Amino acid sequence: MNIPKSKNPRIVIIGGGFAGIALAKQLRNKKVQVVLLDKHNYHTFQPLLYQVATGGLEAGSIAYPIRKVFQEYHDFYFRLTSVREIDSQNKKVITEIGDLSYDYLVIATGSKTNYFGNKEIERNAMAMKTIPQSLNIRSLILENFEQAVLTKDNTEKNSLINFVLVGGGPTGVELAGALAEMKKEILQKDYPDLDIAKMGIHLIQAGDRILDSMSEKSSQEAEKFLKKLGVTIWKNLRVTNYDGRTITTNSDLTFDTATVIWTAGVQGALVAGLDGNSLIEKIKRIRVNEFNQVKGYDTVFAMGDIAMMESEEYPLGHPMMAQPAMQQGKLLGENLIKLIKKQPMKPFEYHDKGSMATIGRNKAVVDLHKFHFSGVFAWFVWMFVHLFFLIGFRNRAVVFLNWVYNYIRFDREGRLIIRPFKKKIFVTFTSDEV
Amino acid sequence: MNIPKSKNPRIVIIGGGFAGIALAKQLRNKKVQVVLLDKHNYHTFQPLLYQVATGGLEAGSIAYPIRKVFQEYHDFYFRLTSVREIDSQNKKVITEIGDLSYDYLVIATGSKTNYFGNKEIERNAMAMKTIPQSLNIRSLILENFEQAVLTKDNTEKNSLINFVLVGGGPTGVELAGALAEMKKEILQKDYPDLDIAKMGIHLIQAGDRILDSMSEKSSQEAEKFLKKLGVTIWKNLRVTNYDGRTITTNSDLTFDTATVIWTAGVQGALVAGLDGNSLIEKIKRIRVNEFNQVKGYDTVFAMGDIAMMESEEYPLGHPMMAQPAMQQGKLLGENLIKLIKKQPMKPFEYHDKGSMATIGRNKAVVDLHKFHFSGVFAWFVWMFVHLFFLIGFRNRAVVFLNWVYNYIRFDREGRLIIRPFKKKIFVTFTSDEV
Repeated sequence: MNIPKSKNPRIVIIGGGFAGIALAKQLRNKKVQVVLLDKHNYHTFQPLLYQVATGGLEAGSIAYPIRKVFQEYHDFYFRLTSVREIDSQNKKVITEIGDLSYDYLVIATGSKTNYFGNKEIERNAMAMKTIPQSLNIRSLILENFEQAVLTKDNTEKNSLINFVLVGGGPTGVELAGALAEMKKEILQKDYPDLDIAKMGIHLIQAGDRILDSMSEKSSQEAEKFLKKLGVTIWKNLRVTNYDGRTITTNSDLTFDTATVIWTAGVQGALVAGLDGNSLIEKIKRIRVNEFNQVKGYDTVFAMGDIAMMESEEYPLGHPMMAQPAMQQGKLLGENLIKLIKKQPMKPFEYHDKGSMATIGRNKAVVDLHKFHFSGVFAWFVWMFVHLFFLIGFRNRAVVFLNWVYNYIRFDREGRLIIRPFKKKIFVTFTSDEV
Repeated sequence: MNIPKSKNPRIVIIGGGFAGIALAKQLRNKKVQVVLLDKHNYHTFQPLLYQVATGGLEAGSIAYPIRKVFQEYHDFYFRLTSVREIDSQNKKVITEIGDLSYDYLVIATGSKTNYFGNKEIERNAMAMKTIPQSLNIRSLILENFEQAVLTKDNTEKNSLINFVLVGGGPTGVELAGALAEMKKEILQKDYPDLDIAKMGIHLIQAGDRILDSMSEKSSQEAEKFLKKLGVTIWKNLRVTNYDGRTITTNSDLTFDTATVIWTAGVQGALVAGLDGNSLIEKIKRIRVNEFNQVKGYDTVFAMGDIAMMESEEYPLGHPMMAQPAMQQGKLLGENLIKLIKKQPMKPFEYHDKGSMATIGRNKAVVDLHKFHFSGVFAWFVWMFVHLFFLIGFRNRAVVFLNWVYNYIRFDREGRLIIRPFKKKIFVTFTSDEV
């Protein structure tokens, strides 16, 4: 990998997400060599992926070049690669571009979509965890409408403009809201020869309320907002299969749709090589102690979504969100230095800064400890917080400018099929008879 | 294609570039049915493609959704498809999504890269005529640097950071300038473990001056600017082959490089089906008379880059640029209405509004009739004109914001490999021996 030997101990970080970036920043110019590995050359601001998918923002506005974050860091190396395996016996990681030895290894590979073993859903549904996936969703939505104008077969037409989102967490809720606004503000004008009123937006939740990680009140408010926007919410309904045409459920209900976006579950994006005892196989997460140290290992750590730290307050681990990831990254940075200096490490304590979701124009719900609020003010708080946590001044400015424009003009101009998702429009068209 | 029969005559336009958009706008709510066909759902502002390729702008800032241009037009239809063939006998176009009859057909398919029949160059060099192509170039440039840090083989390393641009027209010149600025301002900081001073930027021109469509003075100024930025200019040199590793030329000179960007020639993006007599086979352009009427056809027209209108002042046709295309589109709109009303059409006359090229920060050359100027003022004029002709307020604002940011910060944050061009980093790496 062409990384020079250093007199400093080498810390290898796998993953440049919220946790990995926070850790690497904390280690800036300390007496360590840091090697950050990621399969992308950019950091992704995942909370805004749904806006890329619905054409409200460009991909480049929520991505940030990793190398730029670390310009002028000493003894810091970035390598673009995915990791094949961890060889903890020999303290090495095996990657696509060669092996790399480590003194300390930190796994911050995040999470990926969980289809709970259903291969057919995996093949036919769309996931939204990365920028290319979001761009695929954007292309598919627009391709569907372009196909719908072509067909005279009403069943096919309805299926093409029927959208089913499986999973009523923040991602599903925010995406449903954005789709509903596209329907109201844009698609009507863009496709005058379609009856856009027939466009369906279904949000399916297995449990008995949406946003079930938030307060009861926020769930109710969000539901009210979504219904007002024309989203159909199905609760206590479980999707059993999707063959590319029809969703079947645990009830008699079925949905004919060309588009299923699956946000119903996540699992750890696990790297091979760790001992089975340190894993929770079902959700592919890694058991860590209060120092983010992987159970059974002294020099291997895990943090962020991939790590599962049981505590009294969080018996199932912390929520798989940006906040715990960033806090763990920062503390682990301090702790690794302490470990190297043979000082005692500080146990992690999560400071819950609240959670929120936006549903559309002027509509959001916010939980802040005991406080719950919703509506316009919540929406402003949501925007402010998201702008604040975006990396980079330019990204903030461009996102802000787009939001102002979209708000004033009721528009989103990113409705561009730059890389088609389907290679061809395959609708059964009828030739023009004129 | 599901386009209703209209009492108005149907005008089918193939291509939503500068010419096609100008024509369709001119026909707004006249007594005609307009069907616009394009293989993309967006209009591309081609003059700024090189900034997308070099990470200065996002793709979405220079693309504009075609359907948005034509919201609220009556009897107007857009269809996303490519055209297979023209069947002028039966007044039909054969497309990927069915046949479409026409009363009047307008071909505005623009131009594509011309490799002059060399298949090996076509396979191995990069073209830059579309947004996906520009994004591929962006990915390739960054992938090359990521590979260069890995290899210990100096020949390979040098080849990876050696860039050869073939063709000294405005595209080649502007791209060379942008690459030189990336080298100076960004790559040095992003890749501290590479000797960026060794990065080569070669501009190869077959003729005896670059920008040969502009004034002698502008050529000289541009050459001076480029040299100052560290670009090596080769004149009177013709590339004979590129096998993916080495460029051979008509002299003894060869260039070892992983990246060749080919802007050395364009040809018409011809649609099959027209009579050979109406074509100039060598450059794939369509002969039109002064009304943009295709030679030998009454109801088939061609305009923009694809059309070749000989005149006394322009014996080889008008320059293949946005200006003639827009002017032809506008006039043809008026003429088609006249033709339908059986009034005499007005012959086309090109109003040359000048030409320009930018070379980098504070540097541009402008030819305005008899006036030639260069430097900071020319650069401001270049920016103003490009912002003015961009479609859409949001695009203008976002491009402007990016330019201001890039100027102040000496940066371009679009250096993101969102869709890898190569599937894999294939450099011969050495495992880490530590």
